[in-house]
Formats: sequence, structure tokens, C-alpha cells
Amino acid sequence: MSEEPRAVVLLSGGVDSTTTLALAASEGYHLYALTFRYGQRHEHEAEAARRVAEHFQVARHVILPIDLRTFGGSALTDDLPVPKGRSLQRMHQDIPITYVPARNTIFLSFALGWAEVLNSSDIFIGVNAVDYSGYPDCRPEYVKAYERMANLATRAAVQDRRKLTIHTPLIHLSKPEIIRRGLALGVDYSLTTSCYDPSFDGLACGQCDACTLRRNGFAEAGVADPTRYQSDTAP
Amino acid sequence: MSEEPRAVVLLSGGVDSTTTLALAASEGYHLYALTFRYGQRHEHEAEAARRVAEHFQVARHVILPIDLRTFGGSALTDDLPVPKGRSLQRMHQDIPITYVPARNTIFLSFALGWAEVLNSSDIFIGVNAVDYSGYPDCRPEYVKAYERMANLATRAAVQDRRKLTIHTPLIHLSKPEIIRRGLALGVDYSLTTSCYDPSFDGLACGQCDACTLRRNGFAEAGVADPTRYQSDTAP
Repeated sequence: MSEEPRAVVLLSGGVDSTTTLALAASEGYHLYALTFRYGQRHEHEAEAARRVAEHFQVARHVILPIDLRTFGGSALTDDLPVPKGRSLQRMHQDIPITYVPARNTIFLSFALGWAEVLNSSDIFIGVNAVDYSGYPDCRPEYVKAYERMANLATRAAVQDRRKLTIHTPLIHLSKPEIIRRGLALGVDYSLTTSCYDPSFDGLACGQCDACTLRRNGFAEAGVADPTRYQSDTAP
Repeated sequence: MSEEPRAVVLLSGGVDSTTTLALAASEGYHLYALTFRYGQRHEHEAEAARRVAEHFQVARHVILPIDLRTFGGSALTDDLPVPKGRSLQRMHQDIPITYVPARNTIFLSFALGWAEVLNSSDIFIGVNAVDYSGYPDCRPEYVKAYERMANLATRAAVQDRRKLTIHTPLIHLSKPEIIRRGLALGVDYSLTTSCYDPSFDGLACGQCDACTLRRNGFAEAGVADPTRYQSDTAP
């Protein structure tokens, strides 16, 4: 086995998970990236994840299909309209319909299984309690409870006493701070995608919560957003 | 919505999960059964689960494919030999190679998402800390930590303050006790299957840990095991 520790990194192909991957790389981990095709309408993000994983030369990138449309309950997996044109202030007031029930819990559970097989003690997830203040599974108390459960769940933790850590390096950062952090590490954000509701040819809508957060983040960081928005090509 | 509460029940099609389903039914829950095809070599258990779910006339039965072969690490998902002929005593000494990394954590996470969509506050899982004393994710302290995490994970728990309970009615019962409990509820165990390594035509091997636990359970309960074993048909 390699001398460098291995880390499982949840990678959606967006700004946050890509910055998280860059941070894990900068700390010297061998990278094992995990992406899900869960029936999200913005499945194009898996392609962005592939580009990012390739760029970072990860040891292995798994894109796992799991069909969360079976259960529904979210505008990201059902045929429900994605909210558009909401202000940042409005976004922070409630849990939007783009919330996917138990998504981070499901994602972390697969990461936990893979980490055990890899003899890895480190999982990285780019959750953020600033932009996603309404999402219960992006809060520090949730992650802490997950980590505690995980350390009772596996042979690695219980028999081999290998303590698992869930790293959330972005949890208290704003989007402009995340982008600045990533740029300092040389992240190429043109590889990433954020839009919940892109056009068939991959142009970002520019109006959904994810686009609004992204645009605002780049604007506040004072750097150009490399995203191709539908409005850029409007006649 | 129905007046009766809804329960999500993890159903593998074996003795324990089938008894758990019967117990949930006897408590008056509307039943939502969840089965996984995870690449297990004994995928015939999904067919048993279908028979059981039909017999109990559940409100809905979901059989969800998730490919745990991607990560490996278990004799149930890899091309590794399933241990045979181990005594009950030997079984209790270590965590066997049939342990699947993070399996219950993954299963419960999907159940959690489905429960949230169903407005259900109750998940049933037939884990057992007596027969599976070596499995970390069958212990009471694990389930308790999972429940605590789950109550920080979802919109239902955090915003709507709907407390989720993970029911483990078998956790302290022996296999004979489980079987007696099920028979008292009228469970037809001929619908169920336990073998980790059945023949191509569905006969149980009679030698793996699951077969040994099952045979011993029926013998100690003093009732006939309806399973068709390979040895029954030997010339």
C-alpha cells in the first residue's frame, strides 16, 4: 500500500466539491473521487466531475448510479419546476424544493463503505452551512453526528480502531472565500458546473439558486465566472 | 393521507426481516418494504422478498439496484469463497468475510430518504446482536447513533420536528425466539430464504453461516425448517 494516506472525496463537479478536492490534494492525500448519477435533472454535472477528476489525476474516480427518482420528493429528481430568480436573502429563509431527502446521508454512506475497503480514514465533503443554511445535512452538528455514527458502523472503526474523520473544509466559508481559496490552489473553474436546470446543450440557466450563488460568488471574489450562461447567447 | 402511520421496513427476504415485517404489520403500520439488489451472490433473496411483500400486501415494495460490487471488500459481493461449516461458536469469534462494508448504513440511508417523502416517522430493521454479534452495524449503540444522526439530517426532523424512530424489535432475540415470535404471528417461513451461496436452481447450501443459523434456529424452536437444502436431494 502507498505511504500517502488515501481520501475519499465526494465530487459533484461544482465549485464547492472541486475546491474540496483541490484542498485534499494540497494536503497530500491520494484521491478517490466519488460521484453519483442519482436521477438529477442536471446530470451533466457528472461530466464536469469526470473532467475535474481527470484534471487532478485522481487514483480512481467512481461514478455510481443510484436512482433517487424512485422516492421523489425534490425538484431535482421530480418533474417539478426549479425555483428561479430568488434573491440570496430569500434563499436563506427556508429549505427549498431542490432539497433532496437524505441525499448527503446516502452519499456519505457509500463513501464510508469505499473508505473501509481502501483502508482510508478520511472522507472529504464540500458541504457549506453559509450558502445552504437551510439544508439540514449541511450543518456542522449533522456532520458531527454522522462521524460519530460512522465510527460505530464499520469493522475498520470497531475492530481495527481506525478512526474515521469527515473533513468539511468549506463548511464556514462564503462562496467568494471558497473561490479565492480554490484560485490560490490553481483550480480551473471552467471545468466545473453549477446550474440545476441547464439547457439541452449545457448552457447554465443563470436564474436558479445554484447559478445565483455562483454568479454572486465570482462577482464578490472579483474574478470572471467562466460559466456559459444562456443569457450570454441571447440575441 | 391515511390515518394509520406508515413504516419503511428493510426486507431482505430472510427470517429476520420477514419477522420484522410481520411485527410492524401487527402494530398497525401501513407497510412500505425496501429491498436492495446490491450485487450480492445470493440475489435470489430479492425474489423471496417479493413473495413476502406480496403475502403481506404491503402498500408498496421497492427493489432498488445499487452496485456494491464497485467497491468490493466482501465475500457476498466479490469472487471470494463463502465460509462453510463454521460452528455457531466460531461464528461469534470474529467479523466474517461475508461482512459488507457499511451495508446497513447504506440501507438505512435510503430508508431515511423514503420515510421523509412518505411522511413516515418509523423505520424497521431486523438487525440482531445475538447471531451477528461480530457485525458492528447490528449493535444497539450503532443503531442509537444512527437514529441520532438521522434526527439531524432531514427537513422532516429539523424543520417539521417529526422525530424518526429506528425500530429494531429483534435486536436482543435469539434465532429460535425470532422464529417462535414469527410463527405466533402466522409467518409462513417457506416464503423466505437465508442461504449466502445457493445452487443455480435455488437450493440452499446448508453449510454457510446463514444456513447454519437458520437450521439451528428451527431445530431449537422445535419446528420443521421448510427450506430445500442441497443435501435433501443428494442421491
